[in-house]
Amino acid sequence: MALTLKHIAESIGGAVKGDDRVLIKGINSLLEAEEGEISFLAGPRFKDQVKATKASAILVREPTTLYQGPQVIVSDPYLAYARVATIFAPAIPRFSGISEKAVIEQGTRLGNDVSIYPFVYVGKESVIGNNVVLFPGVYVGNRVRLGDETVIYPNVTILSDCIIGKHVIIHAGTVIGSDGFGYARDGDVSVKIPQTGIVEIQDNVEIGANNTIDRAALGRTLIRKGVKTDNLVQIGHNVVVGENTIIVAQVGISGSTRIGKGVVIGGQVGLVDHIEVGDRVMIGSKSGVAQSIPAGEVVSGIPTMPHRLWLRTRAHIRRFPEFAEKMKELESRVGELEEQLKTE
Amino acid sequence: MALTLKHIAESIGGAVKGDDRVLIKGINSLLEAEEGEISFLAGPRFKDQVKATKASAILVREPTTLYQGPQVIVSDPYLAYARVATIFAPAIPRFSGISEKAVIEQGTRLGNDVSIYPFVYVGKESVIGNNVVLFPGVYVGNRVRLGDETVIYPNVTILSDCIIGKHVIIHAGTVIGSDGFGYARDGDVSVKIPQTGIVEIQDNVEIGANNTIDRAALGRTLIRKGVKTDNLVQIGHNVVVGENTIIVAQVGISGSTRIGKGVVIGGQVGLVDHIEVGDRVMIGSKSGVAQSIPAGEVVSGIPTMPHRLWLRTRAHIRRFPEFAEKMKELESRVGELEEQLKTE
Amino acid sequence: MALTLKHIAESIGGAVKGDDRVLIKGINSLLEAEEGEISFLAGPRFKDQVKATKASAILVREPTTLYQGPQVIVSDPYLAYARVATIFAPAIPRFSGISEKAVIEQGTRLGNDVSIYPFVYVGKESVIGNNVVLFPGVYVGNRVRLGDETVIYPNVTILSDCIIGKHVIIHAGTVIGSDGFGYARDGDVSVKIPQTGIVEIQDNVEIGANNTIDRAALGRTLIRKGVKTDNLVQIGHNVVVGENTIIVAQVGISGSTRIGKGVVIGGQVGLVDHIEVGDRVMIGSKSGVAQSIPAGEVVSGIPTMPHRLWLRTRAHIRRFPEFAEKMKELESRVGELEEQLKTE
Repeated sequence: MALTLKHIAESIGGAVKGDDRVLIKGINSLLEAEEGEISFLAGPRFKDQVKATKASAILVREPTTLYQGPQVIVSDPYLAYARVATIFAPAIPRFSGISEKAVIEQGTRLGNDVSIYPFVYVGKESVIGNNVVLFPGVYVGNRVRLGDETVIYPNVTILSDCIIGKHVIIHAGTVIGSDGFGYARDGDVSVKIPQTGIVEIQDNVEIGANNTIDRAALGRTLIRKGVKTDNLVQIGHNVVVGENTIIVAQVGISGSTRIGKGVVIGGQVGLVDHIEVGDRVMIGSKSGVAQSIPAGEVVSGIPTMPHRLWLRTRAHIRRFPEFAEKMKELESRVGELEEQLKTE
Repeated sequence: MALTLKHIAESIGGAVKGDDRVLIKGINSLLEAEEGEISFLAGPRFKDQVKATKASAILVREPTTLYQGPQVIVSDPYLAYARVATIFAPAIPRFSGISEKAVIEQGTRLGNDVSIYPFVYVGKESVIGNNVVLFPGVYVGNRVRLGDETVIYPNVTILSDCIIGKHVIIHAGTVIGSDGFGYARDGDVSVKIPQTGIVEIQDNVEIGANNTIDRAALGRTLIRKGVKTDNLVQIGHNVVVGENTIIVAQVGISGSTRIGKGVVIGGQVGLVDHIEVGDRVMIGSKSGVAQSIPAGEVVSGIPTMPHRLWLRTRAHIRRFPEFAEKMKELESRVGELEEQLKTE
Repeated sequence: MALTLKHIAESIGGAVKGDDRVLIKGINSLLEAEEGEISFLAGPRFKDQVKATKASAILVREPTTLYQGPQVIVSDPYLAYARVATIFAPAIPRFSGISEKAVIEQGTRLGNDVSIYPFVYVGKESVIGNNVVLFPGVYVGNRVRLGDETVIYPNVTILSDCIIGKHVIIHAGTVIGSDGFGYARDGDVSVKIPQTGIVEIQDNVEIGANNTIDRAALGRTLIRKGVKTDNLVQIGHNVVVGENTIIVAQVGISGSTRIGKGVVIGGQVGLVDHIEVGDRVMIGSKSGVAQSIPAGEVVSGIPTMPHRLWLRTRAHIRRFPEFAEKMKELESRVGELEEQLKTE
């Protein structure tokens, strides 16, 4: 597929400076781009790369003299890259129709143009939206609802009664709706508390690979619109994650914790149960969150503290042995002074 | 299903105060309960909720004047909640019999009333107990034994020769019996040490979703009776986990480490290899355990220390920059004092 | 299978001291070995065990008087153990040929003697090498290449266009080629950046269970020859891992980070994006790596510091509360001294 630069600029709301009839057949980084590809200048540190690029056009914030070819002026070149890449991205491979080697149980309704690969199992009384793609090895339990345009990658498990919105992407190996981790103690023995709630995932959510999102004990675990999770993320029962929140890989969120909207949680962070994280909070990677965080704060560390304080604190951690020695020295010097004054 | 309060009280060994003929059709939290549902008062902090609840009966430790309806007096209302919820919990959905779209290899013996969904593969010479449920995508290797009443959720992998007890639940995506991580070095190259042991999981164990439990190099990795693991837990080769131990999400236990019974390991804890954790130890979340822990201790931190000391220690971590400055100031004050005394 | 000690010694380049006609039918630890098995003396701390062993022969570095039976002298008994265990290890169970219950799409080429179990799905135009084993539930996308002798365990997902080398082992539940975690922000909304690169895994790599290795945004995520990863490891898009590097369980490597060769990364370590870890670096478990590390360094901690400094530092961490008190005390003693001198 080749498109004129004019066409591309129009699709993303950019203005062309230079020849807009150039044919573009893909997008690539400045270093890797070849003739016929467009690239993008995401910031001043790429100056040298833009000088040397072989790209046939570039996306820029302001016209640059560092590059001789046609330029598309956009307010955010990185965002423009995302949009142009989407135009050229290969479509998700679809199985044509419903495989005879899939099993769809009774009472389940399928939307138009669904793509159901071999070895998919869909339970009873589920509702599968239009254009949904279910890859091989996907398990969908009873009474599950999957919204239109949703894509479920291979070997994903979605257990009974869960609700998945429209335009959702769930990557391979992820488990939605496994039992929450709830027991009552009877002496030494753990008595299982039935987990009878569900997981609800709203529209435009993308869930990474090998995530685990547990169903609620009662009620629902809720992932709101536009949330994006990376791989190997654990979300406990009855957690609520607010709109457009971003959760990086290997994060663990304990039961009943509520995350606000527009929050960013760095990799390998752990959050205890039953706390609240306010809107637009940012949590640095590897943090241990032991209490609620008010909206807008930027925190890091174990335990969490303001991120700036953490940057200063962690610079001192390696100085403990030195401190300990200095402390000992000071103590003896003060002792000597005291001796001296006593004897005078 | 609706049951009389009398029937419910008898099943859990409670005494009814008030009308025991009330019909109950489910259990819910104080806030969410509706007419016809029973709820429970788990502690004094729920006083306001019990006043406002719409529940038709409650489980309580002692009769309360805060609630006008019938009350079931039990020694542990939270445990009673677990038991009543179990009565009302929907049964695990079963495939009726053995799907023609499953593959059972030769020499495997199936118990009575097994439920084997489509796309299950069971290898040779395995033994599947009575009432076992194998969900779609489950792989069971050769010579595996699965005890009675055990439930294996979708896309679980159980490799050859592993032994799983009775009343075991394994949640979706979990891998039992993958090779332990063992290599000998030959110069720069890692030479694989064949992992020829097994995993043995005893009765009444529940394993969370997307766990990985490696087979032993020689001998067995052993998960004893009543152990419960949360999601994304890693258990290395030759580890032994004692009875009724609880392991929260994303914990990693390195090879040959032995965990006692009744231990509680918080989320994201890591334990090094070849150590011993005594009975009834509690390890706070995110801890890094670098050495053995005697029975009964409560520890936290990286490295681990007594939990109380950790609580005090972590309160000071953010004060390092302040300490460093104060130390510098003290040093110069002491220096001045020394000067002064010298010149006198 | 029983082999003469002579045969075993010749296969591993060892010299027999004693009767080399002894028949050996397996290898085991000193404690567990029975008659007919060989064992190994991996170091002086096993002296007592070697005295008591029932093994019919042992692998040793130097002849020992602690053991009366025949001894095989080798330069590295632990490496010799790995090699002998490999001789006796049971073969990986193979499905004979290509199951009729597998789906192989058009245009895919299969090598000689492939073993394809039921419920395997292979997409279009892929190339599967000789002797490859694909276990049940494996998904192989379109245009994937799998090299000779490679083994893919159950429920592994390998997405389109990825390249896997020869003699590669991928353990159950792992996901290769899921989308990298890349978004551009448009106000509050995350706009997906299509991930159009691939994952390339070179020869002799072994990937643990339930790993996630994301495809590159552009170009490739690259795992070089001889790399070994443990379970639940996350490798972000565009990461490069150098030859023979070892990555222990639950490590997370963020996007575009480059790891050198011969590196060892301990369990639960996290690395930020866009950094470089030099050759032969060793990173202690649970470390948080926030910046590049020069070749040959041994580091630990959050943030990372030289491992020796970390050992000293962590010994002091628990002493903070004590330090804080001592500091206060010193301050008041210095204050008193100052008072005293002023008034003199």
